[in-house]
Amino acid sequence: MKIAILTIGDELLNGDLADTNTAAIAQILAENSLPVREATTIGDREEDIVATLQRLARAHDVVIATGGLGPTEDDRTAKATARAFERSLSLNDKALMQIKARFSAHQREMHPRNEKQALMPSRSTVIANQNGTAPGFHLQSNQADLYCLPGVPHEMLAMLEEYVIPSLLNRFPNPPLQCQRVITVFGLSEPDVESRINRNGLPEGVELAFNVEFPMVKVKLRSSGETAQRLADRAELAVRKALGDHVVGIDNDTLAGTTARLLSTAGITLALAESCTGGLIAKLLTDQPGSSTFLERSVVTYANSAKTNCLNVSQELLDHHGAVSAECAEAMAKGVHAAAHTDISLAVTGIAGPAGGTGDKPVGTVYLAMISPGKERVERFNFSGNRDQVRLRTACTALDWLRRLAMSRLSGEEWES
Amino acid sequence: MKIAILTIGDELLNGDLADTNTAAIAQILAENSLPVREATTIGDREEDIVATLQRLARAHDVVIATGGLGPTEDDRTAKATARAFERSLSLNDKALMQIKARFSAHQREMHPRNEKQALMPSRSTVIANQNGTAPGFHLQSNQADLYCLPGVPHEMLAMLEEYVIPSLLNRFPNPPLQCQRVITVFGLSEPDVESRINRNGLPEGVELAFNVEFPMVKVKLRSSGETAQRLADRAELAVRKALGDHVVGIDNDTLAGTTARLLSTAGITLALAESCTGGLIAKLLTDQPGSSTFLERSVVTYANSAKTNCLNVSQELLDHHGAVSAECAEAMAKGVHAAAHTDISLAVTGIAGPAGGTGDKPVGTVYLAMISPGKERVERFNFSGNRDQVRLRTACTALDWLRRLAMSRLSGEEWES
Repeated sequence: MKIAILTIGDELLNGDLADTNTAAIAQILAENSLPVREATTIGDREEDIVATLQRLARAHDVVIATGGLGPTEDDRTAKATARAFERSLSLNDKALMQIKARFSAHQREMHPRNEKQALMPSRSTVIANQNGTAPGFHLQSNQADLYCLPGVPHEMLAMLEEYVIPSLLNRFPNPPLQCQRVITVFGLSEPDVESRINRNGLPEGVELAFNVEFPMVKVKLRSSGETAQRLADRAELAVRKALGDHVVGIDNDTLAGTTARLLSTAGITLALAESCTGGLIAKLLTDQPGSSTFLERSVVTYANSAKTNCLNVSQELLDHHGAVSAECAEAMAKGVHAAAHTDISLAVTGIAGPAGGTGDKPVGTVYLAMISPGKERVERFNFSGNRDQVRLRTACTALDWLRRLAMSRLSGEEWES
Repeated sequence: MKIAILTIGDELLNGDLADTNTAAIAQILAENSLPVREATTIGDREEDIVATLQRLARAHDVVIATGGLGPTEDDRTAKATARAFERSLSLNDKALMQIKARFSAHQREMHPRNEKQALMPSRSTVIANQNGTAPGFHLQSNQADLYCLPGVPHEMLAMLEEYVIPSLLNRFPNPPLQCQRVITVFGLSEPDVESRINRNGLPEGVELAFNVEFPMVKVKLRSSGETAQRLADRAELAVRKALGDHVVGIDNDTLAGTTARLLSTAGITLALAESCTGGLIAKLLTDQPGSSTFLERSVVTYANSAKTNCLNVSQELLDHHGAVSAECAEAMAKGVHAAAHTDISLAVTGIAGPAGGTGDKPVGTVYLAMISPGKERVERFNFSGNRDQVRLRTACTALDWLRRLAMSRLSGEEWES
């Protein structure tokens, strides 16, 4: 089965509006094991709509189109569809009734302009719109099934769920059983990830894909058929074996989400002292509901005065080693630890750029320090990239330290309290 | 001139990833008066890439393609391009040099797999990638100019600005004179913005569009012809008059960027105390290079123990009024002010949700407090939306307070020091 998505509107091509409909439709179709083969966006020219509809109908079994069903003159989808499929355009009584009912439900008179929205290609089925004035329609030709929906996302999505998906599942009652698993990896490059997985081997019949969502690498496993679920489980095991504790999440898990969950489960309390990340680590952790169970505070000591005053970092240390140094990171972690009395404290200091780099300590130089019961760890990193990337990689590295610590605590290794 | 955008990748059609490249490219082309006629997304199948490249090249003068230039096996754009345009695929020495140089600049060995990224259709020009390992290429055929860029947005965008746009402007030296102005608005709803502007009127010949980028409203003004620039200037003035100090930025300015610039220019120093925003305000300010000139610290006091210990908020106050109260916000602002000795201190406390709401103080209840020379301000807000939206709106409101204070300082109103 070949499905195409067509989004229509000048505003999607002239920089005014980003098309979010394609991704939303693709996701819902994927959840129903309905694969999308192509997505196209065109403007409001009638000729372009006619030609594109004909092209897509020739090459696909199903075309889902959005946009161009409004009451204004530049809404031309119904007329273009009639031309593309050589049908007449006529007033659909059922559609007109729905439009009038919607206006009267809101105690308003129907604007004469809205009558245009009931003009549809002959022999199409009206798709009701519970959330707006533009009904959609379903046209079956010998080439393809065409579903035309309005462009307003929440109207379109409701009609997709209520009409289009059931209609597709009815037409294609036995979509292939499919299973997808997404594995998020931190601390390895994309080629590293790929070669480790290839060396270990996956079960036959599992498709593998990679992509980078900085600074993470995503590994995607896809299987189909009767044993799709079991194949995906086996493939996930193989990938976990190949990548070890670089795996930070499955499917929708994020590094911050996994870290927050583990800290919470392990009952570990945490205090942070952030310099170059400027609150980003705390922000990522507090994005997670329930983060108040483990995060006691984060002290964002951007200025040296804040480091001495909030964290008791001595002026001598700053004069002698500088604010970006292993000594300063360690002193910051100790300072926040002494004040907060949490199980763990973690501190970062570094040069995010663009200014501030030196020969010894170029932009991207970052020190992390962590104090946990009976243990201190301080490390220097040389991260590449721009300011945003250095900050994000620093924050993710800090989260990863916390994640690993919480894991070892939960598995009873290293840290017995 | 007909321009098409082609985005390539299974992840764009299977619901994994929303395509943001098309909208970003369309916007930059629009800023350069270069119109887009069609945008298409296809998966990683080589046959589909070949057929789509041929189709787009037949119907357009220019094709800008992104994605599929990575080192892994499912990256097939270069090979498919060679097939589509009947060229051989060969190792491009210049591309290989750039890839090797990038690795050695980061003190890393090139992975053998990355050599694949230097395989390009013969007679193409390498497009350098300053931010990643995948070089792009420019292939000129008698049908169309094809620019192939990597899919990673920031890499792609830099290459678009540095190579593709100059190349297009060189090929089409006299695009119609056009001018676009984007005005970012905070603190008014979209219908409010629209009716205020309509009441005031714009000069003839200026097109107007709106869209919402939560929690901002963007107003877009477009004019063309000989006087495009002057028309846009006049329209901007009219919009500024209609919206007053709700205008927080022009074109690429963000609220955080504008606020940081104003604080820095006004020579104001700042200390923050954040509870429900969990570091987000500090994060947004320190995203801006040079934020160390004004931000002294932010104390993220997530737990009550942190509020008493870092900010001297009394246990009695917390017991009596609760951590989410005007009294607590004020005490937090005073506490950080007393410790940091900055010109301004600002504190936020609230309930971001999903849990924690009560009848009196539902989710979205937020208190802001600001102390500036000779002045104290405390206010309660009832924000709607989910956790992310409440946090973002709170942070933006805080930034807006700071922006307005810095403006009044710079214009000599209210605060003379």
